[in-house]
Amino acid sequence: MDEKLVELIMGELKKKLGEEVKTTIPVELSAKHVHLSEADSLALFGGPLTYKRELSQPGQFLCDQRVRLIGPKGVIDNVAVLGPARSESQVEVSISDSRALGLKVPIRQSGDIAGTPGIVLASSTGIVGLEQGVIVAGRHIHMSPGDAERFGVKDKDLVCVNMTGTRPVVFRDVLIRVSSDFNLAMHIDFDEGNGSGWTPASECTIVKQPQAEFCGV
Amino acid sequence: MDEKLVELIMGELKKKLGEEVKTTIPVELSAKHVHLSEADSLALFGGPLTYKRELSQPGQFLCDQRVRLIGPKGVIDNVAVLGPARSESQVEVSISDSRALGLKVPIRQSGDIAGTPGIVLASSTGIVGLEQGVIVAGRHIHMSPGDAERFGVKDKDLVCVNMTGTRPVVFRDVLIRVSSDFNLAMHIDFDEGNGSGWTPASECTIVKQPQAEFCGV
Repeated sequence: MDEKLVELIMGELKKKLGEEVKTTIPVELSAKHVHLSEADSLALFGGPLTYKRELSQPGQFLCDQRVRLIGPKGVIDNVAVLGPARSESQVEVSISDSRALGLKVPIRQSGDIAGTPGIVLASSTGIVGLEQGVIVAGRHIHMSPGDAERFGVKDKDLVCVNMTGTRPVVFRDVLIRVSSDFNLAMHIDFDEGNGSGWTPASECTIVKQPQAEFCGV
Repeated sequence: MDEKLVELIMGELKKKLGEEVKTTIPVELSAKHVHLSEADSLALFGGPLTYKRELSQPGQFLCDQRVRLIGPKGVIDNVAVLGPARSESQVEVSISDSRALGLKVPIRQSGDIAGTPGIVLASSTGIVGLEQGVIVAGRHIHMSPGDAERFGVKDKDLVCVNMTGTRPVVFRDVLIRVSSDFNLAMHIDFDEGNGSGWTPASECTIVKQPQAEFCGV
């Protein structure tokens, strides 16, 4: 399709929708955090998790509770607990954190914890040993079915995204996650954010797979 | 040029050179470190820096000496000092380190320290206040004039590179630095390494600037 025609169609679309057709995706930084099962919440805090404030994805919330992570080499205090309770507890850390704890942690998507390392969780009143559940969360983009249609992608697709920032990068193999429960946002962790010069204003766009060729810039 | 012709030429080149024409660049991780002026070395250690072991770039070496970095918010101990002495002291940290120290540190290339934050350096016997000199080192590729010719780039070019790893990325705006003193290596810091799943086997290739378009993967 030639560019003028694309421009014309975009113009008509904008008029029809009454708003700009946005092609950028906000990028949010995920700090280390813990999801707890009801049993582990009971063992650590003597009861269910309690709501402190909502998070960007609908239904997810920060809890009043905080935990200590105890690894073979180090300890990390005051780690956020997110609700609601899940069927299995899960601990999400960065590679930097995993080194501080002394654990070798694979990169996984949330929920995929088979064969991951365990860890000890502690509060001021309880302690729990997890046999598995520590992951470095794989980066991903949450979007609604409407967003997916707009971007021409579907659930479980892997895409490349270009991120603005002081150290601009293209993240490859970014997982698309589509659900009517999701707000549009890309999630990366602190290592990825620091390594790419992320700021709260950072946005990304889906790009073509870069070609492996020399460039004479 | 069609692909068969390129293949033919590459084959002839390989025969002529008697070896594989390597198109990958090794990637090395730079940990936080300090370069000291002779005056600051004297103030901290009572004398010149002493050689411990050589580094990957010719003439650069790790020193026996170590320093403490003291920022407004935090302290980092046991930081490496690299020799030889320079005309001005310079401290290279990651963005993670800069947060721990409580400093807002710009991304700069080595030597470009005008207007950067200061810091306090301490040893067991001395203390020095730097008025400026703390940077987050901009990623760069060291190469010889021969390598530059082979890759079709020149000193101060900015290129995109594709890095292999568990979290594959394309780093954009990577500075080419050409000198007959340099061995071929890309240098990134720990944030960039952790964010991209760097391993000691990671390599990069120069790629074309990714196009800002949707991809229907």
